[in-house]
Amino acid sequence: MTDLSATASVTDRLSGTAEAAGPATDPIVQFLDRHQPETPCLVVDLAVVRERYRQLRSALPDGRICYAVKANPTPEVVGELVALGASFDVASPGEIDLCLALGAAPEDISYGNTIKKRRDVARAHAQGVRMFATDSEPDLRVLAEEAPGARVFCRVLVDNTGSRTPFGKKFGCSPERAAALLRLAGELGLDPWGVSFHSGSQQLDPAAWEHGIAAARRVFDAEPGLRMVNLGGGLPAAYTDQAPPLADYARRIEESLTRHFGDRRPELLVEPGRHLVGDAGVLRSEVVLVSESDEHRWVYLDIGRYNGLAETEGEAITYRLRTDRDGDPTGPVVLAGPTCDGDDVLYQRTRYELPVTLRGGDRVDLLSAGAYTASYSSVSFNGFAPLPTYCVDGDERR
Amino acid sequence: MTDLSATASVTDRLSGTAEAAGPATDPIVQFLDRHQPETPCLVVDLAVVRERYRQLRSALPDGRICYAVKANPTPEVVGELVALGASFDVASPGEIDLCLALGAAPEDISYGNTIKKRRDVARAHAQGVRMFATDSEPDLRVLAEEAPGARVFCRVLVDNTGSRTPFGKKFGCSPERAAALLRLAGELGLDPWGVSFHSGSQQLDPAAWEHGIAAARRVFDAEPGLRMVNLGGGLPAAYTDQAPPLADYARRIEESLTRHFGDRRPELLVEPGRHLVGDAGVLRSEVVLVSESDEHRWVYLDIGRYNGLAETEGEAITYRLRTDRDGDPTGPVVLAGPTCDGDDVLYQRTRYELPVTLRGGDRVDLLSAGAYTASYSSVSFNGFAPLPTYCVDGDERR
Repeated sequence: MTDLSATASVTDRLSGTAEAAGPATDPIVQFLDRHQPETPCLVVDLAVVRERYRQLRSALPDGRICYAVKANPTPEVVGELVALGASFDVASPGEIDLCLALGAAPEDISYGNTIKKRRDVARAHAQGVRMFATDSEPDLRVLAEEAPGARVFCRVLVDNTGSRTPFGKKFGCSPERAAALLRLAGELGLDPWGVSFHSGSQQLDPAAWEHGIAAARRVFDAEPGLRMVNLGGGLPAAYTDQAPPLADYARRIEESLTRHFGDRRPELLVEPGRHLVGDAGVLRSEVVLVSESDEHRWVYLDIGRYNGLAETEGEAITYRLRTDRDGDPTGPVVLAGPTCDGDDVLYQRTRYELPVTLRGGDRVDLLSAGAYTASYSSVSFNGFAPLPTYCVDGDERR
Repeated sequence: MTDLSATASVTDRLSGTAEAAGPATDPIVQFLDRHQPETPCLVVDLAVVRERYRQLRSALPDGRICYAVKANPTPEVVGELVALGASFDVASPGEIDLCLALGAAPEDISYGNTIKKRRDVARAHAQGVRMFATDSEPDLRVLAEEAPGARVFCRVLVDNTGSRTPFGKKFGCSPERAAALLRLAGELGLDPWGVSFHSGSQQLDPAAWEHGIAAARRVFDAEPGLRMVNLGGGLPAAYTDQAPPLADYARRIEESLTRHFGDRRPELLVEPGRHLVGDAGVLRSEVVLVSESDEHRWVYLDIGRYNGLAETEGEAITYRLRTDRDGDPTGPVVLAGPTCDGDDVLYQRTRYELPVTLRGGDRVDLLSAGAYTASYSSVSFNGFAPLPTYCVDGDERR
């Protein structure tokens, strides 16, 4: 089958025709061949999610895996992870409701958003949620009033170098401020649990976690009694990037933990999203039009920035592509979406090559498109429907 | 009532507290006060849409007004414009279905997207649509086969300087290429109707249409028999920009038409979207959190880039704001949305000031938010629901 693993040896990553179509044993290809669904659509193989979860559990055996629901909130995906025993990192009341409806226990839900309305905190607490992120005093005081006794962890701001989608300065505070906030948490009757950080999504440098673990150590030193480090997300999916294998990340994280915590090892949380579901999905699209301008060959797909490919903003995420005409001679293209919006261009600086024989009506599959796609779709921009998701289970078909 | 017109003399545009709350005679304020809907939500006053339509009809009396449905496809808005006798610029089969369902005649629908699937062209033609945009030979050949005899206009690429959201090079071709395509259109049995261009949305320079009208003249010279110029969109709404009054645009367009076409005046189309609906909407949001980092005061709203404010990407569109605490002392802020996404920041380079007394639970209204907001909302990113739209009719209340 087509190798969708993050460590795949992709022969020609920047060619845009990274791999030939997988043999018919690929359950996603089987599904697409059999049902010929209208494009664009996303197909997710739950067996890949399951495999990724197990690999991560092996790689970080004492890390509690909190799936970042935002990466793909499809009920089948969340339900699969409930069955596997995952915990859940949620951003909103909507995500809490989703997890609870699919059988997650409230004590396995971490409200990871530092930006929370008072009534949403109260609601989560009433539903049994007892883990909350924070990074500011106003939020902490709301938590103390609406979720008394809950465990809180404070997010510190760390260097995101190496990430394809760095966070900027929206979240997190300094280690000194984190220590002061966690001290205040205890005074306010909350349980000052630990420290979180995020190394930046699609983090290609396995050493990047060192910054956060070192920062966490500083907070632990300033505020004894803390007992948890939340390693955040950042583990990669297989785009055209050359992402190192999971084992490299696990080894570098382990080295940093040993360096800074020695045998006083904290509880560990990890919040994978993209890493668990990205490579599990194939987004099938259709070529709407191929046209030649004076400078470029433009390939317009029926998928664009507003109906699923939001992460192509700034060309941050560069998906691997597969076409029906792979093997034919290729040439450079500009890739764009179907709307009347000038910003609905996927790749014009990143070099993509596609078969010169490609034409309207041909299919183009975007590989490793299981994360941060369907749930970003607009409701109806330009009159185009949101991206639908179908789930298959490769294990049931083999 | 609060002056929502594009020519409003806004006293302190970049302060972020441009205007005090309007008196209770503002129908949108009345609606919000009476119903206290959950935030965020968009409220559109149909009376403002009506007024704008009539103003534009007066300013460009021989221009056929094709409303750019993408700007706001709310059924009440489209229905209002059907009743006013507007034509419609659509981007997709979904928008055609919407217009027809609301009573638009198929002959009043212009399929303005140059990127169209073959089956979508055939479907539109079967529905009675007879006006199509194009800018490439492959698309033109599809039109000839699937919409024989239809009127086609060719989009030329023009300078977008002065636009807050320029188009780049996704659409349009050179005047020479346009002439060749329109000649081919005739040979293929289509009706070579004319030329379109787009000066860039939220175009602040009324002289910008000169480029497109001059380019259209070149195409008309090269290909006699053409008879229509589509002036596209670009007319402004009232953001913090100092947009000139509509009369200035009308005058400069008229001057260019006279300069290039004299008394051989072509049929005119104009495709306003933002200008008709932008100022008709108020987006009510709630402050989720106000927190101080070392460098900035961050104000997090319950509306962000993924649930309605997509046009704050690159800080292109800078909405005027109104708060319950206008009149209190103000200070600079960074404005951000509610999701766990680091890119969900509205304004960090643009200087906004908001009352220093502002806190979680306070209301912030974004003015002139009727265009390109609700229909851009993601279906569920981070578990947040899409932005709902309510319509009022100020004329019925006065």
